[in-house]
Amino acid sequence: MANQLVGTPNMALIADLLADPTFDFYCMVDHPDNVADLGAYFASRGVRLNVMIEYGVVGGRCGCRSEQQVLDLAKAIAAQPALALTGIEGYEGVIHGDHAVTGIRDFAASLVRLAVQLQDSGAFAISKPIITASGSAWYDLIAESFEAQNAAGRFLSVLRPGSYVAHDHGIYKEAQCCVLDRRSDLHEGLRPALEVWAHVQSLPEPGFAVIALGKRDVAYDAGLPVPLLRYKAGVVPAKGDDVSVCKVTAVMDQHAFMTVAPGVDLRVGDIISFGTSHPCLTFDKWRVGCLVDEQLNVIETMETCF
Amino acid sequence: MANQLVGTPNMALIADLLADPTFDFYCMVDHPDNVADLGAYFASRGVRLNVMIEYGVVGGRCGCRSEQQVLDLAKAIAAQPALALTGIEGYEGVIHGDHAVTGIRDFAASLVRLAVQLQDSGAFAISKPIITASGSAWYDLIAESFEAQNAAGRFLSVLRPGSYVAHDHGIYKEAQCCVLDRRSDLHEGLRPALEVWAHVQSLPEPGFAVIALGKRDVAYDAGLPVPLLRYKAGVVPAKGDDVSVCKVTAVMDQHAFMTVAPGVDLRVGDIISFGTSHPCLTFDKWRVGCLVDEQLNVIETMETCF
Repeated sequence: MANQLVGTPNMALIADLLADPTFDFYCMVDHPDNVADLGAYFASRGVRLNVMIEYGVVGGRCGCRSEQQVLDLAKAIAAQPALALTGIEGYEGVIHGDHAVTGIRDFAASLVRLAVQLQDSGAFAISKPIITASGSAWYDLIAESFEAQNAAGRFLSVLRPGSYVAHDHGIYKEAQCCVLDRRSDLHEGLRPALEVWAHVQSLPEPGFAVIALGKRDVAYDAGLPVPLLRYKAGVVPAKGDDVSVCKVTAVMDQHAFMTVAPGVDLRVGDIISFGTSHPCLTFDKWRVGCLVDEQLNVIETMETCF
Repeated sequence: MANQLVGTPNMALIADLLADPTFDFYCMVDHPDNVADLGAYFASRGVRLNVMIEYGVVGGRCGCRSEQQVLDLAKAIAAQPALALTGIEGYEGVIHGDHAVTGIRDFAASLVRLAVQLQDSGAFAISKPIITASGSAWYDLIAESFEAQNAAGRFLSVLRPGSYVAHDHGIYKEAQCCVLDRRSDLHEGLRPALEVWAHVQSLPEPGFAVIALGKRDVAYDAGLPVPLLRYKAGVVPAKGDDVSVCKVTAVMDQHAFMTVAPGVDLRVGDIISFGTSHPCLTFDKWRVGCLVDEQLNVIETMETCF
């Protein structure tokens, strides 16, 4: 869990799960109070918890802000018999700006340096501790930094770019263009695999469609959904016409506003497939997703867990 | 259903439900193609569907754009034996700008005028057709317009401001201040009844807290969540300290950034109650909500249906 475990009821959930010997769990710590709370709770349950120190960015999100804080926290963990320090974690996705690439390389280097220092001082409870970073935009830089410093030799190095699962047609598509620019040896990148389909609900004015697709259905925080193909209702086998020339201009709770480009002849009841930007916040809108084959047959349904 | 019923699978769901004689259903229509589709489908099922004409706003969302379109659509409905015209509907919430109050009064007046005209021409299939409008910001103006034109005498007049259920601490709180300004005879308004609670997850820098509350948990499209009270973990009976002087400055997928005001002594593991802005988009984040009494005991759990 790339987050702190906070709150006794949440700790209880994990302690209960740890009764299963096949359940393997690691969480982050970044504050001595949390270390004290976890140490006391898991001692009271007679269970040992694997923790990893989160190393953060000044002005960023969670995580220790300096190497000294990391080393001090390692000592606090060592004083808790119910806690096992098993690794170190960082998240570079909060580094932005003109010098992001340099900032991310520096951050990754500092993370490996800290891991080596902790290992040399005997701070880890396991022989091959975990080192992990990387969101879905900069995984190539993190992998290169880990490799350059031979992190894999000493540590179990883990990349965790969650958007590899479905990729998208928005921010992560753009981020991947940058990856491919940086890595000319990669001939092809990820392909977007997440679409949301919706009906044309209303055509109230020329050139303007209201789509039955809203904030309840699709992410809207990092770009609006993009129209891909139009399917006419009842036509089998389904054949999509490219309508990417149309453009979503706004989303409301239950509706999207879409311009209908000249030459696109929409009818109420047509079905449009949309690509989305920011898969995480699209998944959380749905209790079930459908996996389809090339002929659009649903071959599996997948329950989401949020 | 204050929306168009579009798509054969959706029509089939409603036709199946209509087999239950206690199930009463009405949907909106605003386009002759949709009227033709509904008429054909429900005729094929041997079921009659109640429809209401949606009257919209130029530059707005769904709905016929002119009185003439409404009258033409009524004729199209009359030609479909499987459809019964049972009312007229509008949504004034898309009217904005400096002259919103005038625009809304004009819209409501036009809606009633159309209803009267349709009734006088014998277009409705029932003796007391439905007339309905009103979101959660302007329900007083709609009620006044309906009353001024004696809509209740001829029609079943329905207001439908969904946010009365939980109200909020944001946009609808502000909208209600305007209602109370307009209606000095109302001594008290709605009280917000929806809170999202979350732990203080990290205190990585002085004056800065990371809260375990993100875009996965709370609406963020119309104002950020506002801190209300802080509860110390494990203290029973729970007693909240006012922390409304703190301020959420950003939300990410799983985290909120909160400034910690001087004098507020937070600890990792504290629990904070937050008010939200835009209840609709907070409800859709949760599969279950908890109803609590004054002592914060959960007295009922309520499943959401999205």
